Amino acid sequence: MRACVVVNSRANYGRIKSFMAAADVHPRIELQVVVGASAVLPRFGDVRKIIERDGFTISAEMHSVLQGDEPVAMAKSAGLATIEVAGILQRLKPNVVIVVADRYEQISTAIASSYMNVPVAHLQGGELTGSIDDSVRHAITKLSHLHFPATEKSRELILRMGEDPAKVHVVGCPSIDLVASTSGKISSQALGSGVGGPVQDGRPFVLVSQHPVTTEYDRAYFQVDQTLEALKRYRDVSGYEVVWLWPNVDAGADMVSKRLREFRENEDSQGFHFFRNFSPEDYIRLMRSAKCIVGNSSSGIREASFLGLPAVNIGSRQNGRERAENVVDVSDNAQQIERAISAQVKRGYYQSSNLYGDGNAGSRMAEIITKSDSSISKKFYFVP
Amino acid sequence: MRACVVVNSRANYGRIKSFMAAADVHPRIELQVVVGASAVLPRFGDVRKIIERDGFTISAEMHSVLQGDEPVAMAKSAGLATIEVAGILQRLKPNVVIVVADRYEQISTAIASSYMNVPVAHLQGGELTGSIDDSVRHAITKLSHLHFPATEKSRELILRMGEDPAKVHVVGCPSIDLVASTSGKISSQALGSGVGGPVQDGRPFVLVSQHPVTTEYDRAYFQVDQTLEALKRYRDVSGYEVVWLWPNVDAGADMVSKRLREFRENEDSQGFHFFRNFSPEDYIRLMRSAKCIVGNSSSGIREASFLGLPAVNIGSRQNGRERAENVVDVSDNAQQIERAISAQVKRGYYQSSNLYGDGNAGSRMAEIITKSDSSISKKFYFVP
Amino acid sequence: MRACVVVNSRANYGRIKSFMAAADVHPRIELQVVVGASAVLPRFGDVRKIIERDGFTISAEMHSVLQGDEPVAMAKSAGLATIEVAGILQRLKPNVVIVVADRYEQISTAIASSYMNVPVAHLQGGELTGSIDDSVRHAITKLSHLHFPATEKSRELILRMGEDPAKVHVVGCPSIDLVASTSGKISSQALGSGVGGPVQDGRPFVLVSQHPVTTEYDRAYFQVDQTLEALKRYRDVSGYEVVWLWPNVDAGADMVSKRLREFRENEDSQGFHFFRNFSPEDYIRLMRSAKCIVGNSSSGIREASFLGLPAVNIGSRQNGRERAENVVDVSDNAQQIERAISAQVKRGYYQSSNLYGDGNAGSRMAEIITKSDSSISKKFYFVP
Amino acid sequence: MRACVVVNSRANYGRIKSFMAAADVHPRIELQVVVGASAVLPRFGDVRKIIERDGFTISAEMHSVLQGDEPVAMAKSAGLATIEVAGILQRLKPNVVIVVADRYEQISTAIASSYMNVPVAHLQGGELTGSIDDSVRHAITKLSHLHFPATEKSRELILRMGEDPAKVHVVGCPSIDLVASTSGKISSQALGSGVGGPVQDGRPFVLVSQHPVTTEYDRAYFQVDQTLEALKRYRDVSGYEVVWLWPNVDAGADMVSKRLREFRENEDSQGFHFFRNFSPEDYIRLMRSAKCIVGNSSSGIREASFLGLPAVNIGSRQNGRERAENVVDVSDNAQQIERAISAQVKRGYYQSSNLYGDGNAGSRMAEIITKSDSSISKKFYFVP
Repeated sequence: MRACVVVNSRANYGRIKSFMAAADVHPRIELQVVVGASAVLPRFGDVRKIIERDGFTISAEMHSVLQGDEPVAMAKSAGLATIEVAGILQRLKPNVVIVVADRYEQISTAIASSYMNVPVAHLQGGELTGSIDDSVRHAITKLSHLHFPATEKSRELILRMGEDPAKVHVVGCPSIDLVASTSGKISSQALGSGVGGPVQDGRPFVLVSQHPVTTEYDRAYFQVDQTLEALKRYRDVSGYEVVWLWPNVDAGADMVSKRLREFRENEDSQGFHFFRNFSPEDYIRLMRSAKCIVGNSSSGIREASFLGLPAVNIGSRQNGRERAENVVDVSDNAQQIERAISAQVKRGYYQSSNLYGDGNAGSRMAEIITKSDSSISKKFYFVP
Repeated sequence: MRACVVVNSRANYGRIKSFMAAADVHPRIELQVVVGASAVLPRFGDVRKIIERDGFTISAEMHSVLQGDEPVAMAKSAGLATIEVAGILQRLKPNVVIVVADRYEQISTAIASSYMNVPVAHLQGGELTGSIDDSVRHAITKLSHLHFPATEKSRELILRMGEDPAKVHVVGCPSIDLVASTSGKISSQALGSGVGGPVQDGRPFVLVSQHPVTTEYDRAYFQVDQTLEALKRYRDVSGYEVVWLWPNVDAGADMVSKRLREFRENEDSQGFHFFRNFSPEDYIRLMRSAKCIVGNSSSGIREASFLGLPAVNIGSRQNGRERAENVVDVSDNAQQIERAISAQVKRGYYQSSNLYGDGNAGSRMAEIITKSDSSISKKFYFVP
Repeated sequence: MRACVVVNSRANYGRIKSFMAAADVHPRIELQVVVGASAVLPRFGDVRKIIERDGFTISAEMHSVLQGDEPVAMAKSAGLATIEVAGILQRLKPNVVIVVADRYEQISTAIASSYMNVPVAHLQGGELTGSIDDSVRHAITKLSHLHFPATEKSRELILRMGEDPAKVHVVGCPSIDLVASTSGKISSQALGSGVGGPVQDGRPFVLVSQHPVTTEYDRAYFQVDQTLEALKRYRDVSGYEVVWLWPNVDAGADMVSKRLREFRENEDSQGFHFFRNFSPEDYIRLMRSAKCIVGNSSSGIREASFLGLPAVNIGSRQNGRERAENVVDVSDNAQQIERAISAQVKRGYYQSSNLYGDGNAGSRMAEIITKSDSSISKKFYFVP
Repeated sequence: MRACVVVNSRANYGRIKSFMAAADVHPRIELQVVVGASAVLPRFGDVRKIIERDGFTISAEMHSVLQGDEPVAMAKSAGLATIEVAGILQRLKPNVVIVVADRYEQISTAIASSYMNVPVAHLQGGELTGSIDDSVRHAITKLSHLHFPATEKSRELILRMGEDPAKVHVVGCPSIDLVASTSGKISSQALGSGVGGPVQDGRPFVLVSQHPVTTEYDRAYFQVDQTLEALKRYRDVSGYEVVWLWPNVDAGADMVSKRLREFRENEDSQGFHFFRNFSPEDYIRLMRSAKCIVGNSSSGIREASFLGLPAVNIGSRQNGRERAENVVDVSDNAQQIERAISAQVKRGYYQSSNLYGDGNAGSRMAEIITKSDSSISKKFYFVP
């Protein structure tokens, strides 16, 4: 059977890679890899090269992200992605399309697949974060035919929305597979290329990854400003370095970039190091080397739980997502953020949690996919 | 406030017209009307003229339907519609977008609205038919912020999927509003223009409306063939006329058209009259004048229940939709279809049912919309 | 080298097929075939099946034609085709793209190629017809890097517009290659499947092919009406049959179809036979079997000149195109048309002309393409 | 009559503004302003605000530029722009569309207009630069119905390509209108906001504006590097400041940005000031305040000729464009560039030239447009 994976960002790739590896060697699966959206943009890390270096063959690529920081550009990108995916599915004729998580390129894939009678397998459905992404994620669930939630609680939510229990499989999150199979700390070489000079060997640092919140994109500038303020103060007090990751391509991203540029050019940025992207493996090593992760990236909730890495989660973006004990939540306020960082760093690493998986999600998925029927008709199941 | 209605087919228009009328005269609503998809195609009845004749002003129109009978064309049409809607919302800046039912142009509208932070009000959510349209309808529900289900049972389903109870309002179906406010029978003039010659005044007739089933589009030719066969036999036995409506623009439609053309050109089509479209009002009058409605159109379930018109529902397309007692279900088999028609015509009209509404849905919707907050953030509600 | 041919209609295919055959066996050319626009629509003859039956492999297909008879649909189709071609060129990475003639899908190909730094070879540039297609054809010339005009006069026009003389090669028209290599008359079997019953064996007939004129699309109904009228009268006088070809997909096509349907359903259509499409070979045999060709198709000017087939050319669509002696021009007036048909049939076949080529264009093109440099920079040449 | 101007960049706006002003007050013209492409991107200067501040009303805006530095993104942007323009013309129904110059958004406008039967008036046709833009500019000429070349030599070229002499009017370039009507030097306030700190009052500076060359986009990094090198040396020798303008959105732009960022972050950028954009007026004042203009922007050839500003034109991008005596040409070599700057600054300002107009182009255009017939049919004119 032909199983088609759509990779739309470097984060996507980190989450689906272990499945890709399992599918690639599975005797009954012919793996097809489609790369699109921000994964083909050099500005956000050209994931194509990483994928090929990892030994996968790219079956199709698509360019569909519009420039511009206005919501209209995101909406049009979703439309263009639908057109592109349709043409690609017409050519690749997969038996199943695997869609990850919740972003707009993913619902585009789900819609194109639906209308082309190709079953959709959905990874990470049923999660709750409180952001607009939830609506999109649940909408993808309703368009999907096979579900791979990461947790039992997510499975329950998917069933509640009427999906067939026989098609909902808790496999854990493949992103944890990658964490489990990646050892070591980040190399000083990898930390030598950022803007702001190299992180000196062995210097303790805090990791920051903060994205604009889609429904609050006019507050993006303010939000990043508060986080910056907190980290400037914490740096002054602790002498720790700051490793800051560039945000992904969402409404609001330009405002975040603007604030970060202003900071670098006009303020005291001593000890701050900005990076555009890491390979998924290096990102894990980076987390394992950090004293604390700060921001609103889901990796603070998900990968960090397995690593036991202390996390300070800011604002509403991850609201409602299940948490292990490693997470402390704060609002977008500089003082709160600084205090939480200070306390978390002092507390140190937590015990590893299996909340988001045990490291074998990818191979479970491959096995289940080969055994699933390919029917695309669905009915609503009322599970008590 | 600006309330934007998107009309994508003549059926859409019939279903939303009473709301449009209520909104148009409401002191606090500025109505915006967008017309697109098959509603701007002469081939399927240019609904623009009807809308303007009814006194509404069209704010925007969009052309986004691709030619071709393959699923890839439908998927690309969905993508193109998303792009078009995004541009239109950017210009019209509505406070709410009203989306009807379940077709691909509608999910395009819902996605564009979501990403542009415009709340979506969804009409006819929560219904179950068993077709692929269900997935799309439920996905629209998860992207919507205000829900106007037609029935209590539909409301329950919407709540089960996690929507906020305060945002789900059973108003009845606006299509029933139109039925309630349209009196009389179809004029012989309106029945004089079809292919196959005029229906002679007062002659009894059976009404047929059969669409291809999206998930079974390769069986479209066979399915229409069985229905044709049944009606040829019933005509021969009863001497009744047959009024047949051209199908809408779906995957499979070309196959249906092909079979109908062959029939007209090579077989005995005496007593068969083919029509491309009626105004929504004339369609109601046509139903009220028929002895029975045959096929798989939702109007046989919905509008016919209020009229008490006997309906023979064929195949899987309306599976799971709530029925009043006027409906008899059969599979796509000529003999079964013929017998059911014969029995239903003999039985005659049923008592009118309020299952799908009492005729006041439109004005209820207008009132509720003006009172709703415009928040676009959502959370998942667990209602017992 | 990779040479990519874009086939957008059955007419396109007839014109480029001999080049495709020559390229396919050429040791230094890897042929890539892209099929799009009306060539993938069953309604206009699914050319994909013919191409594959002829032994070619299709490298990519694209769906980009919008429904609707309004100019806005044509313009959007051009845009969508540009997007599709871009994605396809990105994947196929050809060294040269071969574009035929003058329709909107072709300028879309030329634009996408230009921006992607792929040289464009243009067939049939430099011709003058007087229609809007001229502007598009000349615009394609200015975007092209290698030119294959059919005639010396066309070459002069291309040079006048500033193209490099070393890149302009008169090869004749490949459509004449097909005529030269296709023998025999049309079989009665091929004439047995049209709407209106079979053409009886050996009965003399007149061939009609009339397209809407893009700049006069509101007169399309009137124009086809005049031609119909002329042929009804001529049929009545001569007793000849009429073989009528369905028009291609242009603005105005729906009006032409409408008038033809009305005729078939409500008027005396005895002796009229309507066909949707023939293979290019059968079309040549059909021409060779006809007494006269009537309408505004370029085949009446081009292929008919080689065959010596008497042609009655109606209206402005072919204005300015070079003619051999077989053509008589008339305006869109029933009486004029009828008289010209009568005179031409009486006159009988003309001597074969080489105005549009001698039958070896395709192999000449293949040879030249392999020897051309692949530079995409251009300058304006002033040739006296 | 409705005259629709399409503004796709800040440069476009500078060139068409005087016509807009003339049209806006003309009793017989209703001006429509469409803003798209890079003109709606904050990253390249949101021209919408400037247009509105100047008192014009924006009729429509469109978002159609894809992210990504690969040619496929430009090609798709052209396609998406065609779709967008088509929808906008459908709504605005102009009697004529005015298109400026030669970029891909402009040919998209010309194609959409052609297919929608709207006459196109083309500004700055017939010019020769030697870049890929030439092909596009000439293709636009062949799709246009009314021509406003800036110079007599351009008029001759347009006639040579077969346009109707009665439709080709030398009006001068409207960009010169703006120069003629804008007085004064750049304020120190306007020069205070760039990256790299303010330009100190009265300090002499050299102005740099260098774009990637579309056909050489893989050399973009090298080319900007050479120019940087030259200016670093010249700064060290002369002590002059450098005012550097960010490049526009073309294939290669990301490479240019990359080199500039590296320079700012890792090299001695003392005296260098980077600006994203100026209003067209401030840009003229900036030129008038500079000692020399360096790079490959057409403003060095065009506006600078009227100002007498010494220009150093680098590389092939402006090849073949007519020059007044103020221009010295060099190849992309640091040493050559530095020497030319040094010589030009020493030489000082030249006499003002009327080669590109006398400052009254806009009002001439408005007058001619109101008197032109609206026919869209064209024929090829053979002018000796």
